[in-house]
Amino acid sequence: MDWRKHVRTALDGRHPGLGHRVELGLHALILYSALEMGVETLPHLPGWAATALSVSEIVVVAVFTIEYVLRLATAPAPGAYARSFFGIVDLLAIAPFYLGLAFIGFGLDLRAVRALRLLRLVRLLKLARYTSAIDRLAAAWRVVKEEVIVFGVAALIVLYVCALVIFQFEHDAQPEAFASVLDAMWWAAVTLTTVGYGDIYPVTPVGRVFTVLMLFVALGIIAIPTGLVASALSAIRTREEAAAREPEPPPAEPPG
Amino acid sequence: MDWRKHVRTALDGRHPGLGHRVELGLHALILYSALEMGVETLPHLPGWAATALSVSEIVVVAVFTIEYVLRLATAPAPGAYARSFFGIVDLLAIAPFYLGLAFIGFGLDLRAVRALRLLRLVRLLKLARYTSAIDRLAAAWRVVKEEVIVFGVAALIVLYVCALVIFQFEHDAQPEAFASVLDAMWWAAVTLTTVGYGDIYPVTPVGRVFTVLMLFVALGIIAIPTGLVASALSAIRTREEAAAREPEPPPAEPPG
Amino acid sequence: MDWRKHVRTALDGRHPGLGHRVELGLHALILYSALEMGVETLPHLPGWAATALSVSEIVVVAVFTIEYVLRLATAPAPGAYARSFFGIVDLLAIAPFYLGLAFIGFGLDLRAVRALRLLRLVRLLKLARYTSAIDRLAAAWRVVKEEVIVFGVAALIVLYVCALVIFQFEHDAQPEAFASVLDAMWWAAVTLTTVGYGDIYPVTPVGRVFTVLMLFVALGIIAIPTGLVASALSAIRTREEAAAREPEPPPAEPPG
Amino acid sequence: MDWRKHVRTALDGRHPGLGHRVELGLHALILYSALEMGVETLPHLPGWAATALSVSEIVVVAVFTIEYVLRLATAPAPGAYARSFFGIVDLLAIAPFYLGLAFIGFGLDLRAVRALRLLRLVRLLKLARYTSAIDRLAAAWRVVKEEVIVFGVAALIVLYVCALVIFQFEHDAQPEAFASVLDAMWWAAVTLTTVGYGDIYPVTPVGRVFTVLMLFVALGIIAIPTGLVASALSAIRTREEAAAREPEPPPAEPPG
Repeated sequence: MDWRKHVRTALDGRHPGLGHRVELGLHALILYSALEMGVETLPHLPGWAATALSVSEIVVVAVFTIEYVLRLATAPAPGAYARSFFGIVDLLAIAPFYLGLAFIGFGLDLRAVRALRLLRLVRLLKLARYTSAIDRLAAAWRVVKEEVIVFGVAALIVLYVCALVIFQFEHDAQPEAFASVLDAMWWAAVTLTTVGYGDIYPVTPVGRVFTVLMLFVALGIIAIPTGLVASALSAIRTREEAAAREPEPPPAEPPG
Repeated sequence: MDWRKHVRTALDGRHPGLGHRVELGLHALILYSALEMGVETLPHLPGWAATALSVSEIVVVAVFTIEYVLRLATAPAPGAYARSFFGIVDLLAIAPFYLGLAFIGFGLDLRAVRALRLLRLVRLLKLARYTSAIDRLAAAWRVVKEEVIVFGVAALIVLYVCALVIFQFEHDAQPEAFASVLDAMWWAAVTLTTVGYGDIYPVTPVGRVFTVLMLFVALGIIAIPTGLVASALSAIRTREEAAAREPEPPPAEPPG
Repeated sequence: MDWRKHVRTALDGRHPGLGHRVELGLHALILYSALEMGVETLPHLPGWAATALSVSEIVVVAVFTIEYVLRLATAPAPGAYARSFFGIVDLLAIAPFYLGLAFIGFGLDLRAVRALRLLRLVRLLKLARYTSAIDRLAAAWRVVKEEVIVFGVAALIVLYVCALVIFQFEHDAQPEAFASVLDAMWWAAVTLTTVGYGDIYPVTPVGRVFTVLMLFVALGIIAIPTGLVASALSAIRTREEAAAREPEPPPAEPPG
Repeated sequence: MDWRKHVRTALDGRHPGLGHRVELGLHALILYSALEMGVETLPHLPGWAATALSVSEIVVVAVFTIEYVLRLATAPAPGAYARSFFGIVDLLAIAPFYLGLAFIGFGLDLRAVRALRLLRLVRLLKLARYTSAIDRLAAAWRVVKEEVIVFGVAALIVLYVCALVIFQFEHDAQPEAFASVLDAMWWAAVTLTTVGYGDIYPVTPVGRVFTVLMLFVALGIIAIPTGLVASALSAIRTREEAAAREPEPPPAEPPG
């Protein structure tokens, strides 16, 4: 086994000697990195803590950079890795830091962009291999995908149409709150998800009647996909249990 | 094939030569028309943009008018089309524009009525033929229709009765917020759908106790139809899969 | 057939000659009575309308009184009717009016009590015989009754305990909003049903952490009964359809 | 039967002579204790009532202390009881009272800690033996445990990431409301559970767009576990009914 294979299997947690150690260490670093971004926002941090966080951020980005370079160098096809989903995620996670260094004298605020590092959390999905629940969820998703997409598109259209209608009713009564259809869409989304902050709501009688009708009809459209996934999931579990209980089907009968 | 049939099949996307092109173009125009109504509401639009939107509105209405006239002229039974669901929708979508022109000197504000053009979005439902998810939804709806209607009527009665009761409890304490049973119905709808804007809520002890009881009992009544549709849907999918898997039933055994 | 049987069957909609006419008339009167209570609350009613509503209220109560007396007089066992569920409902619906007359000089406000007349709306449940959906709902309810009760009691205990805990955390920070455990229970109910008016919410860090934990755990406890009823309902429908499809089971095999 | 066995069986409701009396009495005392903690918080309590509540609290703690000592003295293995779940609960329920006495001169406020006595309410779970609904819930929980845990962890990660992202968008616009990621997490929890108090919400366009996307995606993640438990529960009920209906399976065919 050459060094490339050693490095590659170590990073992926399939190394015969190191096992999951390197992989789990990287996962821990991803979690630490996410945590560090949160702690950093706390007000009244003492100076030494802020310094420690900044230093640890540099260390984290350095490790992620080394990991990226190693993955690139040891991949059987480096170009394929660079263009793969995880390759792009790994690059986006470290790029903002170096862009920030490059533009340090130009007064650009790249803090918000740094949040791209959180994309790395999707790497934790690889832990999914330790549980069959994720497999079942994926199978359920394949079953209900079409319905969920139809519902999603319908929900978007409903949201936009509701916003246009309420805008006609409320704009004259509340020109500040319902300044444009964008405000109305914000209202529609907050209302249809039943969050209802109370920062914006209809006050005209016709606007209120429309809101009530909209809620009764549209709540169904938005809430059904959830039920779909759940019942598909339980159907898959039932089928798996049945398959585990009964003997192998005779090979003579082809399915379908 | 005479010109009538050419036009009719082109509009419906079944023309041998043009295929779906004309139909998809009309669908795109419907979407543009909806989008234009939203963009128009944005404040601080530059003058040229407002002009462009007004012109494009006229073009859209012109195309819809031509489409309506063509459909009327080429339908096998023009009267039947004019009285059909889509015929009425197509007319309602263009009528407000011409009414606005007719009454232009009378200071009538027909802007809100223009929203009727959004009715045309139901034409997009014809895209449903590209997915079997809609068929399954329709089948599920037929299965649960009766329960959903019973629940809907029950929900309306519960809403009205809750509004009457809370009005008795809260009117004296908050004569402004609970001015009549209409305000109380607005409160009941916003509360029972769990939106809870916070613009109106009970403050008396007895009103609060009633609200809590109402929520615990009535949430079930309103939330159940959603679950019904979802489980009917999954039952239909199971049945379809079973039908696809097993061979044709022997014709000798009549069902039922 | 003597006059008692004539009256009794007419009231119940089983009269050979009158059919459902009398029964439906009484149902219409119940609906009118509910509607009248709402219209009455509208502000700025002209004097003649207020008078008309008052008069119609007297007529409605008079008809309900005559109905009650007739039912009492024609029942095979008058005492049994008077003590039955519908007998008590019929009495409670008219009693407040006569009590109001009796105490008219004492300045008692019996307006709120008049809402008892709405109890009569349960008579509309008799319309349920026209739909099998109600039967299926009742069957589903019998299946899940035990779970729903267990969940209901658990929800009440959770609500009370959450209120006691949040009171300990928030009372000192907001002595006005969280004045006693009663306010905390109002908060807990409004939060756990996700209504969230925003009239009362935790502000201390520990109170907020507790709220988040509470929501994640307790939402399940409160939301599950709904799903239970829905899936029981669909199971019953499946069973009914299967029963309708297959032939009568051979009588030789006893169940269980 | 020696006195230890007499005491032990009496406390557990399995005494041949006393039956459930002692056990039910202790359960009643647990309920009273919880109720007393609530009543105590009511403002404007007359002096005698406050005194009565304080005295009754001492009595309750005394009885719980005697029960704890008796359970410890009569257990077959006292150490095992002391370290068991219910042993720890019983100790935590009485410890704060004695700690409060010990530190009475030090000005420590142990009122909040007294809420630990509510832990004793879990003893009421033993009433579960009177209903098979709890057994079915436990079985359903075992079936869906893995999915619910996966969803729970996913929900926590989603919550934290959403909080970090919204913090980047809203901190500059509302430095008071979104002071740190902790406030943002409070916002995310209140929004994702659709409570929506309205004490904190995004105002920037990009923050609002992110909120809408978050709601549509994340509501599914949080709401699905509920549906899972419900459908698992109904599957278990179906299986139980089938098992009750059909005869014992022949012993010759081993399962699996």
